[in-house]
Amino acid sequence: MGRVSTPTARVRLSPEQRRRQLLDLGTRLFATRAVEEISIDVLAEEAGVSRGLLYHYFGSKQDFREAVIRHAVEDLVEQTAPPASGEPLERLAASVGVYVDYVLANLTGYRSLVRAAAGGSEELRAIYEEARAALTDRIFREDSLGEHLSDDPATRLVVRGWSALVEETVLTWAQEPSAMSRDALVDTLVAALPALVGVIADGAAG
Amino acid sequence: MGRVSTPTARVRLSPEQRRRQLLDLGTRLFATRAVEEISIDVLAEEAGVSRGLLYHYFGSKQDFREAVIRHAVEDLVEQTAPPASGEPLERLAASVGVYVDYVLANLTGYRSLVRAAAGGSEELRAIYEEARAALTDRIFREDSLGEHLSDDPATRLVVRGWSALVEETVLTWAQEPSAMSRDALVDTLVAALPALVGVIADGAAG
Repeated sequence: MGRVSTPTARVRLSPEQRRRQLLDLGTRLFATRAVEEISIDVLAEEAGVSRGLLYHYFGSKQDFREAVIRHAVEDLVEQTAPPASGEPLERLAASVGVYVDYVLANLTGYRSLVRAAAGGSEELRAIYEEARAALTDRIFREDSLGEHLSDDPATRLVVRGWSALVEETVLTWAQEPSAMSRDALVDTLVAALPALVGVIADGAAG
Repeated sequence: MGRVSTPTARVRLSPEQRRRQLLDLGTRLFATRAVEEISIDVLAEEAGVSRGLLYHYFGSKQDFREAVIRHAVEDLVEQTAPPASGEPLERLAASVGVYVDYVLANLTGYRSLVRAAAGGSEELRAIYEEARAALTDRIFREDSLGEHLSDDPATRLVVRGWSALVEETVLTWAQEPSAMSRDALVDTLVAALPALVGVIADGAAG
């Protein structure tokens, strides 16, 4: 990915549409840049948007960065929405497959977001934890008949552990993709969930 | 845990022994303090050690903090060494049990180390990654007959994911220990390893 192309703004846009368009442009920076490099200055230079316009829509450098990251994370949650029909694990596989592809396509930004959220930035941590909670809730909602998961504190704990495993495994795999094929990775991560849940039952009973 | 008690230094110590004693004292701060609060000033005040002496042994505030964290992490690796004999999963259970107890006893420092290592600090990340590599290598070494793990890139990838799962699960559980008993937690984490490895085999074959 090289430069972000200039928006063709022939059509008169509402302020909300214009803000959204600028956010979409900002989000494209996320693919190849660390979160700390996402700034009004960089977008102005890359996309040929005036800095004044960006300040007008986003207020400050910090607000702009947060708006872009929030938009990128909402985009991730939306993109990974599972298909409406199918068996829960098949739908999870579709979702995890999109997640793997998303991480690969946005590796620099995504890795830096995970680190920034884990590390110092309270604002980024809040955005990231919100997304994580949304993704976890969705896993329980998608299995609403309890075919694979019962909604209790022990299972919630293990699903959170599973989501950390997914994140770490995908980020590590992205650096050394020869360890397994993309499809084997997806299958492994999906099958890991019922395997782990099966283990709790034994653990809690033991 | 309140104040760190003053060392009773009646016996003449060698410089190396004295440095080690000061490091041990510094490491006790780790139990109840975030990594950014571990400093020469805090130790001087808490343990009644002169700041001049600490600068003499550790050079700078930054070097002191790194020495303390490195010492704490080495201590963790040492404490979690599995017993010499027994079946691999039993020895892993002993090791994971000590890890859970260590995290509980040092929650503030350990959580902040994980965050700092994931986040901004390159030095802390290096110390933490070294410990993580040592712990992972040990898991393969302890199962030298390959009863549960074969040493190949796919299994290494999943073991890394498992270690992220262990870390996240224990830190989350420490906040809400009512989700399962300490022993059920240890059993779940230990049984998760062969369960996950079993899943790769299927994934790679599929």
